[in-house]
Amino acid sequence: MRKIKIGLFGFGVVGQGIHQVLGRSKNANAEIIGICVRNPDKPRAVAADRSLFTASPDAILDNPEVDLVVEVIDDAAASYDIVRRALLKGIPVVSGNKTMLARHLPELIAIQKENGVALLYDASSCGSIPVIRNLEEYYDNDLLLEVKGILNGSSNYILSRVFDHGADYADALRQAQELGFAESDPSFDIEGYDSLFKLVIITVHALGAYVAPERIFTYGISTIHDSDIRYAREKGVKIKLVAQVVKVSDECFTMFVMPEFVTPDKYIYSVDDEYNGVVIRGECYDRQFMFGKGAGSLPTASSILSDIMARLHDYRYEYKKMNFLQKPDYTTEITLRIYARYSETDVPHILRFDRIYEQYYSDDSNYVIADVSLSELLAKRDRLRSEDVFLANLTRFFQDRDC
Amino acid sequence: MRKIKIGLFGFGVVGQGIHQVLGRSKNANAEIIGICVRNPDKPRAVAADRSLFTASPDAILDNPEVDLVVEVIDDAAASYDIVRRALLKGIPVVSGNKTMLARHLPELIAIQKENGVALLYDASSCGSIPVIRNLEEYYDNDLLLEVKGILNGSSNYILSRVFDHGADYADALRQAQELGFAESDPSFDIEGYDSLFKLVIITVHALGAYVAPERIFTYGISTIHDSDIRYAREKGVKIKLVAQVVKVSDECFTMFVMPEFVTPDKYIYSVDDEYNGVVIRGECYDRQFMFGKGAGSLPTASSILSDIMARLHDYRYEYKKMNFLQKPDYTTEITLRIYARYSETDVPHILRFDRIYEQYYSDDSNYVIADVSLSELLAKRDRLRSEDVFLANLTRFFQDRDC
Repeated sequence: MRKIKIGLFGFGVVGQGIHQVLGRSKNANAEIIGICVRNPDKPRAVAADRSLFTASPDAILDNPEVDLVVEVIDDAAASYDIVRRALLKGIPVVSGNKTMLARHLPELIAIQKENGVALLYDASSCGSIPVIRNLEEYYDNDLLLEVKGILNGSSNYILSRVFDHGADYADALRQAQELGFAESDPSFDIEGYDSLFKLVIITVHALGAYVAPERIFTYGISTIHDSDIRYAREKGVKIKLVAQVVKVSDECFTMFVMPEFVTPDKYIYSVDDEYNGVVIRGECYDRQFMFGKGAGSLPTASSILSDIMARLHDYRYEYKKMNFLQKPDYTTEITLRIYARYSETDVPHILRFDRIYEQYYSDDSNYVIADVSLSELLAKRDRLRSEDVFLANLTRFFQDRDC
Repeated sequence: MRKIKIGLFGFGVVGQGIHQVLGRSKNANAEIIGICVRNPDKPRAVAADRSLFTASPDAILDNPEVDLVVEVIDDAAASYDIVRRALLKGIPVVSGNKTMLARHLPELIAIQKENGVALLYDASSCGSIPVIRNLEEYYDNDLLLEVKGILNGSSNYILSRVFDHGADYADALRQAQELGFAESDPSFDIEGYDSLFKLVIITVHALGAYVAPERIFTYGISTIHDSDIRYAREKGVKIKLVAQVVKVSDECFTMFVMPEFVTPDKYIYSVDDEYNGVVIRGECYDRQFMFGKGAGSLPTASSILSDIMARLHDYRYEYKKMNFLQKPDYTTEITLRIYARYSETDVPHILRFDRIYEQYYSDDSNYVIADVSLSELLAKRDRLRSEDVFLANLTRFFQDRDC
């Protein structure tokens, strides 16, 4: 059995995790032969051979011994540069950078094809949950109807604190930051961008379609108020930040990320704390639910290990669904039923509602339950956010108990 | 893109499901070119071209056009004969027959290797949940600690009726039979053999080890009494029929199938009705939970479709873990803490307990909570069953919240 020689980019939380995981696995035929970091002399928590470190990407990319580049750096622009260069040189790559992938997948897929070289990235979406691989290999038919889930652990941790432990939102956010779940700038997590980038990647493997992030409605939880939490509690539901891609007809699919009122009969209702949960629904296979740790050093590193091991068998994504003759088109021309809470401003004058079911006014806050088109939400997103409006999805796309 | 030409053996519930699923998938490059059944003239619920049917296996196996044999017949002996002959002729096979596979895997793996031909069988374990494929491909390292789950939908349906709907056991069994979940001879499901055969197959892909079914302790739910159900309800737990393979040390693993008292904090607590749920635990990836429909015509057929599609890309199991240099050995020399309920007989005189924690006597029934070795249970299994003893596992192998 050959041994894969790895050039590692990045030695932060995940990079150190990979080093540890490879050390623990007695049968992993892989070794790290070089580690590129910004500052090779910085002291590290995990002991690694000092001679492996370099600050020069070229020292890795020009080393003919390197069979595989594993890229787990934080900076999307630097990640893109390294991944692109490695692939153009014919070196296969394992990457965990969802921001970079969500922005550059079409080009990186084209380079893979032209150069006959593999790029694997299962760790980029939902950490240890094997979503990409299963969509690519196991659900590799055209019967898929929906992928829906909680894809971001930090925002879910905050919402769990609020709902299960009665914390207030600001305290929960602080706790998440102290535990290292939320970044020092937490907007990436709580505004939904992390979930969005994962959804873009998932959709490539779910339906064979790439949709650029800016075309997708994304609304986070930063505008949540006590009145929203109270409302949800009274109705016996939890507020979760949910990403979904849904086939709304044979010809069309839609995608969005936004808070949702989740009833206790749904699988994702019980996905709490920093966990992720994904429901895959198909025409014949009903619903599959996958649940696990979506982030963290060792769960993410073990997902990277799966991609490394796959390379021992020359595995690559085939992007099979991109070659299907009949593929659905992306649409935002669908109607969602939503809850919209507002205070200062008058939401019915911002959003053109198709139909209003309920309106509530009080000194404290106002809300409306109404139908609105997704394209309308997308067009008004920035204004809604700046006016401190909270939105939650109430739509059921499938009449039976959905996910 | 080439089109796979399928020779189908069996046109029962699953066979008809495959015919339907292939019809619904516009991008499935596969067609059925022959169907072997015992009685080709029998009327069928699903309309298929009459000219495809034959009663002669040779008409399929000798047809040079056939690229793939899909075998979904009920009879394990006939299944073995067909699968073996097909593989020896170099024709790849997709099979869903867990009984046959659990008994003959070592020989069938050897034939695959010698003849360079593939045998796929993801549908054999947990229907639509992709357990085998994930263990083989994604968890293809040596960090796995445990696979544990509810692998049989019929027995779980019965137990759900009893716990969630207050039905009594006999009524629940009758209901399961009326709904087609339990066979007319339900012992296969409720005595744990169906779960056992799936566990044998799963263990080949989880740890690279084959253990013959007769070496594995298997105890079902047929001896359950009202007093057991009452006891479990009082303790706030559910009784589930659980199959598990567990690494108990670096050198050893154990396996068994038996009822378990499941507390509400476990993932499998919420696996109700005819659903299956599997927890995969590893050293670094923590726990993954997969949940879905374990049986039924279309869920099983869609799993078969995944295997058929995999053949379009020449996929085969590599049985990677069988080649690991350091593999754990099977042991039954471990201690389990159990609940044993008895009435007529005196269990402490049948089973040699290591330690007794609780004993309860009443006119109605008696029970004991005690430590006992798995080898002792295996040796006394038939006697316990014949004496109407009910057993439930209480052991926690991992101190944190396990599955």
